[in-house]
Amino acid sequence: MDTSDGWNNLQPSYIREILSSTQADQLISLAGGLPATDLLPTELFAPYLNRLCGQPELFQYGESEGYSLLRQHLHQQYNLALQAKILITSGSQQGLDLIARTFLDHNSEIAMESPCYLGALQVFQLTGCKIHGIRQLAEGPDIEQLERLFRGGRIKLFYAVPDFHNPTGLCWSAESRYQIAKLCRQYGVTLIEDAPYRELRFAGKQLPMMAELCPELTLTLRSFSKTLSPGIRLACLYGPALWIDQICRLKQAADLHSALPFQAILPELLDSEAYKHHLSKLRQRYASNYNLLSTEISNKLGNRVQYQAACGGMFLWLKLKSEIATPLTKHALSHGLAVVPGQHFMLTAKDDRYLRLNFSHSTDKQLIQAVNILEHCFESVN
Amino acid sequence: MDTSDGWNNLQPSYIREILSSTQADQLISLAGGLPATDLLPTELFAPYLNRLCGQPELFQYGESEGYSLLRQHLHQQYNLALQAKILITSGSQQGLDLIARTFLDHNSEIAMESPCYLGALQVFQLTGCKIHGIRQLAEGPDIEQLERLFRGGRIKLFYAVPDFHNPTGLCWSAESRYQIAKLCRQYGVTLIEDAPYRELRFAGKQLPMMAELCPELTLTLRSFSKTLSPGIRLACLYGPALWIDQICRLKQAADLHSALPFQAILPELLDSEAYKHHLSKLRQRYASNYNLLSTEISNKLGNRVQYQAACGGMFLWLKLKSEIATPLTKHALSHGLAVVPGQHFMLTAKDDRYLRLNFSHSTDKQLIQAVNILEHCFESVN
Repeated sequence: MDTSDGWNNLQPSYIREILSSTQADQLISLAGGLPATDLLPTELFAPYLNRLCGQPELFQYGESEGYSLLRQHLHQQYNLALQAKILITSGSQQGLDLIARTFLDHNSEIAMESPCYLGALQVFQLTGCKIHGIRQLAEGPDIEQLERLFRGGRIKLFYAVPDFHNPTGLCWSAESRYQIAKLCRQYGVTLIEDAPYRELRFAGKQLPMMAELCPELTLTLRSFSKTLSPGIRLACLYGPALWIDQICRLKQAADLHSALPFQAILPELLDSEAYKHHLSKLRQRYASNYNLLSTEISNKLGNRVQYQAACGGMFLWLKLKSEIATPLTKHALSHGLAVVPGQHFMLTAKDDRYLRLNFSHSTDKQLIQAVNILEHCFESVN
Repeated sequence: MDTSDGWNNLQPSYIREILSSTQADQLISLAGGLPATDLLPTELFAPYLNRLCGQPELFQYGESEGYSLLRQHLHQQYNLALQAKILITSGSQQGLDLIARTFLDHNSEIAMESPCYLGALQVFQLTGCKIHGIRQLAEGPDIEQLERLFRGGRIKLFYAVPDFHNPTGLCWSAESRYQIAKLCRQYGVTLIEDAPYRELRFAGKQLPMMAELCPELTLTLRSFSKTLSPGIRLACLYGPALWIDQICRLKQAADLHSALPFQAILPELLDSEAYKHHLSKLRQRYASNYNLLSTEISNKLGNRVQYQAACGGMFLWLKLKSEIATPLTKHALSHGLAVVPGQHFMLTAKDDRYLRLNFSHSTDKQLIQAVNILEHCFESVN
C-alpha cells in the first residue's frame, strides 16, 4: 500500500536511528532527552495505586476533555482565567499533533524557532504546511526577522519553547517575551507555547509565561513527563475555550480520551509535600549535572568550544570552532558515546558547528567519561 | 483561527450531543456502547498495581511499538505468524486513526459497510478520502456490490467489523469471509478488520478471523475496552511487518508511545484464570440482557418491529415498519429513554426505519422500562 502524502513528509528520527543501530547498553548516551531514571518518583504513586480498584468509573469510558477533577485542579494551580479551558492529552506530543491537525493544512504557513524540537517539526510536516525558521539569538528569537515574517500576513501560528529550549537550552528574556506578545497581538498570530522544561529552572528567576502576557492568543502545553514521569503519558493543553473545544473534537476522533487511572491520581499527588520535595531534588540533580558537565567541558575542551550558560532544562548546546560536529559524532559513537549533531534540529542553513548534549540522564561518572571521549575525538578529527 | 480542511470534514457525534443535552443521570440510555460498569473487573488489577512502583522503567519513556513483553504475549496468544508485527495503541480508535493517516489522503478511495461505526467514519473523513458505503445483508456485506467496486481498481482498503458489527450486530457467515478474502486477494485490496466485540460471542460458533484467511492483506484491530476496561485505553493492531513499521512511525509523531504501567500489567492478567472467569461472566450477562431485551420487544412491540437475532456483541438493530425512528427517538428522550436512530450510522440512502439499542450497559429493570417507553411512544407517534 502506498503511504499518504502527509506520511511521506515525515522525516525519520535521527536520534531513534543512531540509538537503535548501537548496543544501547554499552553506550554512554547524551543523545536523548530522558529524565534521570533513578529519580523517577515511583514511590509517590504507591499510596494512590491501591485506591484505584475502588473506583470502577476510572476503568469505564471517560470524557474526551480529560478527568474533570484533574482539569479543575490544574485550572486552579495554573491560575487560569475563567474563560480558559484545559484539555488533558497523552503527553505534550499529542497536544502538538492535535493542534496541528485542528488548525493546519497544506495551505497554512507557520513559524518556529530554528533549531527546533523535532517532535513538533514532525507533526507540522504531517499537515504539509509551509514552515518558516526563526533564528535564535541569546535573548530569544530574532525579533526583526519575526516581525518581517508576521508583517507578510500569512503566518497562522508561531510555535516556540520559551523556557530552556530543546535543543539550545535558551530561555527568552523578559524583554523578548513582552515584545513577542506585542507582535502576536499586532499581527493576530497565535502563539503555541510549549513549556515542558519550565519547572526545571535551577538558576535565575522565573519569568512570565506567554500565556500570561497574551492569553487570548496563546495555546500552552504543559507536561508531566519531565517532572514526574514520561511513562504515564500525561500532559495538558490550555487556552481560549473555543480553540480547546475545537481541538477536543479532534481528540475524540484520535483516541476518545486519555487513560483515566493515572489522571485520577494526579490531583492529590501534585499537591503533596512529597512531590514538592521531589521537584526540588530533581532541580538540584540537574544543576549539579550541568555544573559538572560544563566544568569538565571548560577544563578539557577549553577554547575549542563555546556555549551559553543554561539556567534550567536538560540540554547544553555546544558550539565548535569549525564545522566538524558530524564527523566528531561518528567518531564518538565508535568510542561508546552518543551525542546529536545540532544540524539535525535546524530547519535551514544547516550549520555543522553544534552538538546537543543532554545532562539529565547520565551519572557523574558517565558525564566525565563523555567529555573524555569528546576530548579524545577532537584530537583525532582535527 | 480557521480550522483545517480535515477538521471541517469531521461530523459532530450525534450520540455525544444528545447525551450532553440531557440530564444523563435520570436517563435510561440504550444509546451508548459502554460495557457494564458493575462488571468492570477492577479487582483483577489489584495484585499487579502494587508491583508497579518497583519498576521505574515503566515510568520512563518507552518504545513506540509498545511494551515488548506485552507484544510478545499477544503475538503468542493470537497465534500470529513470525513475519507479522504488533503495535500497541491507545484504544482501537487510535489504531484506526493511525492507519488512516499512514495510508490515506484526499486522493484515496475506500470502502466501508453502511451502516458503519462512526468513530471509523470520523478518522476516514479527516483524511478527506472518498468513502464508498457497502450494503449489509444478513450474511455479511453485499458481495456483488463489493466486487463491482473493487473491479474499478480505485479502492485502497475495505474497513469492516465482521464480528457483531456496530451498529447492526451482524456477524459475517463463514462463506462471506472466504469470499471476501478471495476478493481482497484478487483485487489487491487491504482489509481493515476491526474486532472489538469478537470475544463477546454468547451464541453459535466462533468463525475464522479475516487475519487468518488473508494475513498478507489484513490489518487487525483488537481492543481490551470491551472485555477488560475502556478507561485504561489499550488495544493492539497487527498485520504485515512493513505496514506496522510505517504506522509505528506515525504513532511516534502522534504521542511517542502509549502509557506503560497498564501495558505491563496485561500479560499476566490476561493469562489468569480470574480473567477467563470474568470473560465468561461477561458473556453470560450480555446473553441474559439480550434475551431479556429481545423477549420484551417481541412481547410488547410485536409486529411493529423486526430484527435479526444477535449472537454476541452489544447491540440490537431494530427495524421499524415505517420511517419514524427519528420522531420516535425524540419522543422517547422526552420520556427518559435515549436510543439512536439508525440513519446516523448510514453513509448513503438514509433510511429512518432503524434504531440501535445497546444492551450491555443497562440493568434488567432499565431494559424492561426502556421497552415500556418505546411501546408507549409507538402509540403516540403512530
